[in-house]
Amino acid sequence: MTHHDTRKNWRTRAADTAARKEAAAPLFAKGKEVLAKDTVALLEAVIRAGDVINIEGNNQKQADFLADCLNQVDKSKIHDLHMVQSAVPLKSHLDLFENGIAKKLDFAFGGPQAARVAEFIENGKIQLGAIHTYLELFGRYFLDLTPRVSLVCAYKADRKGNLYTGFNTEDTPVIVEATKFKDGIVIAQVNEIVDELPRVDIPGDWVDAVIESPRPFFIEPLFTRDPANITDNQILLAMMCLKGIYGEYGVTSMNHGIGFLTSAIELILPTYGAELGLKGKVCTHMIINPHPTMIPAIEEGWVEAIHCFGGELGMEDYVASRPDVFFIGPDGTLRSNRAFAQTAGHYAADMFIGGTLQIDKYGNSSTATAGRVAGFGGAPNMGCDPKGRRHPSGAWLKCGAELPSLDTLTGSVPRGKRLVVQGVETFGEGRKPVFVDELDAWKLAKNANLDIPPVMIYGDDLTHIVTEEGIAYLTRCKDMETRMAAIRAVAGFTEIGLSAKPEETKALREAGIVKTPSDLGIDPARATRDLLAAKNMRDLVTWSGGLYNPPARFRNW
Amino acid sequence: MTHHDTRKNWRTRAADTAARKEAAAPLFAKGKEVLAKDTVALLEAVIRAGDVINIEGNNQKQADFLADCLNQVDKSKIHDLHMVQSAVPLKSHLDLFENGIAKKLDFAFGGPQAARVAEFIENGKIQLGAIHTYLELFGRYFLDLTPRVSLVCAYKADRKGNLYTGFNTEDTPVIVEATKFKDGIVIAQVNEIVDELPRVDIPGDWVDAVIESPRPFFIEPLFTRDPANITDNQILLAMMCLKGIYGEYGVTSMNHGIGFLTSAIELILPTYGAELGLKGKVCTHMIINPHPTMIPAIEEGWVEAIHCFGGELGMEDYVASRPDVFFIGPDGTLRSNRAFAQTAGHYAADMFIGGTLQIDKYGNSSTATAGRVAGFGGAPNMGCDPKGRRHPSGAWLKCGAELPSLDTLTGSVPRGKRLVVQGVETFGEGRKPVFVDELDAWKLAKNANLDIPPVMIYGDDLTHIVTEEGIAYLTRCKDMETRMAAIRAVAGFTEIGLSAKPEETKALREAGIVKTPSDLGIDPARATRDLLAAKNMRDLVTWSGGLYNPPARFRNW
Repeated sequence: MTHHDTRKNWRTRAADTAARKEAAAPLFAKGKEVLAKDTVALLEAVIRAGDVINIEGNNQKQADFLADCLNQVDKSKIHDLHMVQSAVPLKSHLDLFENGIAKKLDFAFGGPQAARVAEFIENGKIQLGAIHTYLELFGRYFLDLTPRVSLVCAYKADRKGNLYTGFNTEDTPVIVEATKFKDGIVIAQVNEIVDELPRVDIPGDWVDAVIESPRPFFIEPLFTRDPANITDNQILLAMMCLKGIYGEYGVTSMNHGIGFLTSAIELILPTYGAELGLKGKVCTHMIINPHPTMIPAIEEGWVEAIHCFGGELGMEDYVASRPDVFFIGPDGTLRSNRAFAQTAGHYAADMFIGGTLQIDKYGNSSTATAGRVAGFGGAPNMGCDPKGRRHPSGAWLKCGAELPSLDTLTGSVPRGKRLVVQGVETFGEGRKPVFVDELDAWKLAKNANLDIPPVMIYGDDLTHIVTEEGIAYLTRCKDMETRMAAIRAVAGFTEIGLSAKPEETKALREAGIVKTPSDLGIDPARATRDLLAAKNMRDLVTWSGGLYNPPARFRNW
Repeated sequence: MTHHDTRKNWRTRAADTAARKEAAAPLFAKGKEVLAKDTVALLEAVIRAGDVINIEGNNQKQADFLADCLNQVDKSKIHDLHMVQSAVPLKSHLDLFENGIAKKLDFAFGGPQAARVAEFIENGKIQLGAIHTYLELFGRYFLDLTPRVSLVCAYKADRKGNLYTGFNTEDTPVIVEATKFKDGIVIAQVNEIVDELPRVDIPGDWVDAVIESPRPFFIEPLFTRDPANITDNQILLAMMCLKGIYGEYGVTSMNHGIGFLTSAIELILPTYGAELGLKGKVCTHMIINPHPTMIPAIEEGWVEAIHCFGGELGMEDYVASRPDVFFIGPDGTLRSNRAFAQTAGHYAADMFIGGTLQIDKYGNSSTATAGRVAGFGGAPNMGCDPKGRRHPSGAWLKCGAELPSLDTLTGSVPRGKRLVVQGVETFGEGRKPVFVDELDAWKLAKNANLDIPPVMIYGDDLTHIVTEEGIAYLTRCKDMETRMAAIRAVAGFTEIGLSAKPEETKALREAGIVKTPSDLGIDPARATRDLLAAKNMRDLVTWSGGLYNPPARFRNW
């Protein structure tokens, strides 16, 4: 055996952290409190050039004050930061790159800054690490992308550093744990510093500094859709989804993506869904944010349990009043948690249904376009077949049993499959065709120098496409040729759709691989707004018994 | 719009919890402390027949005192419990079913009770829900398998209910969060109740009762392998893995499963690995428990970061002294976390390598046999292709690029693939053939009335098989026929192996789909114990500078 000689200092990170905190020591007012006016000085004391930094910026609540302050540091000292964070929806997130403070970005969701992200990548202001799905990025926090300093946000803190994140707990626990337990530094902006918290969401041991922000953190009602804007066409799609998928497979657990189609589905559960006899048979367990459009179905007793990634502005009181359904703390407030909701969305839910900007002829889809790096958030994680899943359910088994090509993958061994549904109108925003020969993601990959195009949902994970033409049951296709024909058959008047051969489509309909509204026994004339359990925001408030409190911009009364 | 009439009471669970806690109120000594002698009475007060119950029983630390007490409750009142828990390795876990207290089981790992689980299923004492992978079961805690009462364990608590789980944090956070935030009840057994905790791992708000157990919780050194028991054959396999897979693909991030092969790999990193020039190029980031056999490679500076599912008995001081590598809290002790380690293992690691009891002719593998319901723990989660993953890495891209059949799945769109490696000797324990025509899992499915056979790793997820015959590079196979031939080629003298056709094997070797030791440039004569950086437990202690403190049963000095 080689004689061992300990040459290495194994506490370099801890020693460096101690030195940084020592430099910041004069800035602490009382306990762990730092005054807002000293925030820039605090950041300059604890951050070094080249650090891996996380700014809590998920898709809803934002550590916006800390992001602003980071833009004000002395960039001759602090530069080349590597930002690792769920989302970059704020102008200040991108300003860091404009200002030469940050250089590299690993993220999951771009939101309103998508075009600027693309521009910065092209002109070299951003070195793109990768676009992730949230849970994947969280996983990397514990392996190769551990933050050195994290800037998070909470509603309240005490001076021991305990945090109350409450309704919008979201990403905070996973960020703080990964940072603090690798000798990193955690700084929290809070709306209020108090003596007694309603409950502790993050133990004070895990937090280095708390700052009462001059203004409450920014929060976006990202999942609120006004029923007044739902179209008849969306209602037709929603009817097809309910009858041809939810009912057909008996899907009890699911995630609904963001958008008007899923809002329409939620709002026809108590009407068309009830008529189909689906109550208690579908949508009983959900992983979703507190969508206001879920209120009527919840009130009518459709749903047993909902776990939330985050909160939704205006839904605080309603959710608190429905503790049998939501995950509520001893203080009476929701605890959301993006890491665990994504875990449940990946492994426990039988279906993901959402929309997209483009679907290619093979069934691959993406929201990335040439000039916009939007990212995917949670869609890839929930919109894929979770290969590690082992527990059976009716919907999962039925979908798996439909796969004629499973023998090419696992021989004679059976397996279920998660339902992954894309509901789209064949022409989307700006009358652009959704069905395309090649995804714009290819151009983006070229522009941004990516190894592979950023696909949101891969064709082999996608099980159903729903358009105004009908449903393509992709799992029932025996090979790629058949799958491509089924996609063409529902692609309407797009170029892809126009290449469909009538005799081929007829055969697919006879085989039950493609079903039109009439094949499903749905009368398109019934697809009107009359089917919506709530037709506008005021109806939702009424359904909630006055508990839902919509943000001002959604009110017109 | 339908006029809404609130008929439902939305606080049934909260009200029921309040009633149960009221019944238990006289049992509280001081703050949240209940005396050990009152534990059975406490359980009788807060548990009802038919409840969903979690006993913290992951694969290492065990809430064993609480499990024993649950066996002593009045079964005329408490029966038909539905147990949802990571593992059932203790006799007491199964006694609950024997005693008529529990009825249904959802779990992930059986360990030493595997045969009894199978027997109980067959004779109807256990109604089996499903066998899960850990992270999947955790996901269901937030959706459809939320515990009503959870019995967890920690090292220390204070009387406010704050818990210190420290080195063996493991499953506690995810169990407590799912239970407490759905109005459930959390009871913790702790080794010691103190006034001041070293750090807070679980906030006191989240815990209802703490009990100082009459004895420390049971903990199993599950991942410790004595280097003295590593064979030359295992060293040959380890050499092939390092040269033909780790080096070939440049695998930097990974999980090592349990077993002597991975221990052998760990112990030849500083010798054969260094000779191959792999230091800094492979094994730099790992998701593993603190394996003692990793000590030499860590000491030699191979590893940058390790995140742990759980602790490993005897490794406390060593791990605490290497904070640059491990995730250490402000108190100087490891924080493990099974949920986040599994998340990283699923999404962040490029490779999973482990062993199995059986591989079928298609490449599906399982540790389940007719008479043993062992469960799979974390293997399916890490030993699958994570379909939601979107960030590229060298190893992932190279493995994906090798797939000639990707076009049948995604058309022209490229994608990477995680490496999933099974390393096995062709004849395993008791000289039973590892390669079989049909997995015993089929018989188990029949006996236990399962919907589908419990497969640990599916053939389409498995990328490489390593045996003493060589490596089968399954991703390079264009179709199932080729894959089956590659499997036969490395199956040695098993019946499957004997059906290999020499000319076919020759063609596969020429195509680089099968590589023997000589194809890899490995001299089997060098595969001796001389290559091991540590040859026994004492060597590991020496490498650790005396910091590793092996459990008594591993000591012979």
